[in-house]
Amino acid sequence: MVSNCFKKYIVEFLGTYFLVLTIGCMINLETDKTLAPIIIGLVLAVMVYAGGKISGGHYNPAVSLAVYLNKGICNKRFFGYIVSQFFGGIIAACTVNYLADGTFMPMLGFYMPALILAETLFTFLLCLTVLFTTRKEVSPNCYYGAAIGSSLTVGIASVGSTICLAAFNPAVALSLAFMNGCCICLSFVTILANFAGGAFAYLLFKFITNENRQEGAD
Amino acid sequence: MVSNCFKKYIVEFLGTYFLVLTIGCMINLETDKTLAPIIIGLVLAVMVYAGGKISGGHYNPAVSLAVYLNKGICNKRFFGYIVSQFFGGIIAACTVNYLADGTFMPMLGFYMPALILAETLFTFLLCLTVLFTTRKEVSPNCYYGAAIGSSLTVGIASVGSTICLAAFNPAVALSLAFMNGCCICLSFVTILANFAGGAFAYLLFKFITNENRQEGAD
Amino acid sequence: MVSNCFKKYIVEFLGTYFLVLTIGCMINLETDKTLAPIIIGLVLAVMVYAGGKISGGHYNPAVSLAVYLNKGICNKRFFGYIVSQFFGGIIAACTVNYLADGTFMPMLGFYMPALILAETLFTFLLCLTVLFTTRKEVSPNCYYGAAIGSSLTVGIASVGSTICLAAFNPAVALSLAFMNGCCICLSFVTILANFAGGAFAYLLFKFITNENRQEGAD
Amino acid sequence: MVSNCFKKYIVEFLGTYFLVLTIGCMINLETDKTLAPIIIGLVLAVMVYAGGKISGGHYNPAVSLAVYLNKGICNKRFFGYIVSQFFGGIIAACTVNYLADGTFMPMLGFYMPALILAETLFTFLLCLTVLFTTRKEVSPNCYYGAAIGSSLTVGIASVGSTICLAAFNPAVALSLAFMNGCCICLSFVTILANFAGGAFAYLLFKFITNENRQEGAD
Repeated sequence: MVSNCFKKYIVEFLGTYFLVLTIGCMINLETDKTLAPIIIGLVLAVMVYAGGKISGGHYNPAVSLAVYLNKGICNKRFFGYIVSQFFGGIIAACTVNYLADGTFMPMLGFYMPALILAETLFTFLLCLTVLFTTRKEVSPNCYYGAAIGSSLTVGIASVGSTICLAAFNPAVALSLAFMNGCCICLSFVTILANFAGGAFAYLLFKFITNENRQEGAD
Repeated sequence: MVSNCFKKYIVEFLGTYFLVLTIGCMINLETDKTLAPIIIGLVLAVMVYAGGKISGGHYNPAVSLAVYLNKGICNKRFFGYIVSQFFGGIIAACTVNYLADGTFMPMLGFYMPALILAETLFTFLLCLTVLFTTRKEVSPNCYYGAAIGSSLTVGIASVGSTICLAAFNPAVALSLAFMNGCCICLSFVTILANFAGGAFAYLLFKFITNENRQEGAD
Repeated sequence: MVSNCFKKYIVEFLGTYFLVLTIGCMINLETDKTLAPIIIGLVLAVMVYAGGKISGGHYNPAVSLAVYLNKGICNKRFFGYIVSQFFGGIIAACTVNYLADGTFMPMLGFYMPALILAETLFTFLLCLTVLFTTRKEVSPNCYYGAAIGSSLTVGIASVGSTICLAAFNPAVALSLAFMNGCCICLSFVTILANFAGGAFAYLLFKFITNENRQEGAD
Repeated sequence: MVSNCFKKYIVEFLGTYFLVLTIGCMINLETDKTLAPIIIGLVLAVMVYAGGKISGGHYNPAVSLAVYLNKGICNKRFFGYIVSQFFGGIIAACTVNYLADGTFMPMLGFYMPALILAETLFTFLLCLTVLFTTRKEVSPNCYYGAAIGSSLTVGIASVGSTICLAAFNPAVALSLAFMNGCCICLSFVTILANFAGGAFAYLLFKFITNENRQEGAD
């Protein structure tokens, strides 16, 4: 039971992390701000669809308060959720500050550690969305395609062109070398980061969903 | 019965209020107008998903006329709906005029009463959308994530950057202080306004859904 | 049977009409072209959701050809569909030419006949979408809110600011007079046009759905 | 069984092809880049909805890796998928390079071979989306309208105005001649290309879905 609670906290942490990461990238990186409201709404929708059936998909202490008052969650979990959410937000803020600094140290047009971090993070988000929205417990549903497409949109809008290639897909990373003449070694680093993001997504998915299946819903 | 009717009028009032509030903010505040048609369509979609199963989700006297002619609502309710809708629109127009005036009296970069009002109103909208689209009577559905994300999009596009931080989320409000160096006391005021919005959303949700459950559908 | 076929042709005519009307407005009126691809995709989605269960929702001779080859429609209907579609497109082109001319003869900021036509047409589209996506035959579904919101988005993007107030809603039309100081008589004309659009939507909905119910699906 | 596997590879090839084609058009053609993240997310969503029930709708080696680790696909298919995806991406890159070159050789305002290729390709995508999302095996669903509308949005944003008329619809192609005074012979060529796209979509749909129906799910 404690373990299942902990998994819910991880989902709330991750959801708030990606929400604040996207907000921070839209505000602090040199990206086109026109679409910012839509991109931020999309990342929330993606995280709600991906983790909603596990934690409730709050990612917001004000929502947790409303649900708690409505007796949707207990005392203990209310505080656990709020702590996870604030913690996720602060870690995301640190990530954004690191990525924003990276834009001042370009190498081959990009700053390698920021490129690798950004490609891995958003491929992780994309693969996580695929695994969570197509898993047996929530099938059939009709939001999986929109959620998967939106997770790609969020990644491209957040870190595209300023931080990395925004491929989040080895096949795209290779094709970009054919189309734009981007350095093949940039493609190669991106491909490795993308595969790493996919593998991390599998590990987290396994960790979150495994015990739930054995113990039933909490 | 009268009481259930009154709840439908409140839903029609609220839906038209947020529709006109969003239209007014997009037109009268100094926001980017590019996305206006999409934002206005999204707020209507959000309110239709949130309140549709309670009042029918018209928010528009012309729609109420079409439904009335089609014998979807009775004489009495037709007039009640139209009055609620015009009333909601006028109150929203007053709110917009107040918010637009607020942009001329900045303090710490923002005019505090307008900031608190805007943060509370749109956190209220976000939490209301969560409570209404995830309640038992409409589960399972597959629009909840899109509706919740869109309600955030609407808030950010309507009052973001001109009136308030547009966090609508205490975890985001705190993170913004870490990322952008926005004054911590601004964060603190926003956090309080967000929690207030969540609590108000719970109160209204309780009021609208409580008696319905006891008396059955009207 | 002939009668049911004729209703399908009307739906195909209307769908192609609003598709080409929107394309024409986005291209020929002085509107912001940034959102054009999204708006045109939305109007197609709206018409597919509104009329799809009646005619199949092709609105496109190439789609009708693919469906015909796949034995989804018979010889006779294939030709009927294509004729309805080309006819709808040409009538829409004439409407666009009329509206575009109207922008050169402003009165109170707008050219009255074009304003009345545009407000009526798109309120008709909005109310039609409400009636068709919430009717019993297709309930419950989860696209109604998105379709209704999108029909409003399409109207605002197509004729907003250049041709009319783009209220498509009497409560909004009245509120605009309170917020922007738009002439109250402009509001009044808009309100009448909106109610007319709602009444026309009811008449067409009644005509299309009535006999189907008696005769069963064709 | 081998044959069914081969069909899955074709779906993965096509999905990656249209994903990279869209990315390439948004980057390399002289189009408005504002909407690029949304358009690229939409094409992924469209392909996931169209082909998801056949191949799983990965279109991304990193997603295939995550699904493979999660035991969603076997060893052999994992390699088949990755090869199909890289191959689809590279062929799409060649198509983009050809289309981009075409913009330097205009005739009647457009370069005819590129115009015909682009109109045929995206009408093919639109008709394929209609056939796949409305087929019996996935009905009823509520994403078909959004997927069909989005496939039109993707086409217009990718090749509209620079390469071709972006009608993807003979009725629209004819109407454009009435509205914009585009040369009637341009309309005629577009109409033929659109019908060809519809016929190709039927052939591919038949090939993919036929044997599945006889042999059952793989």
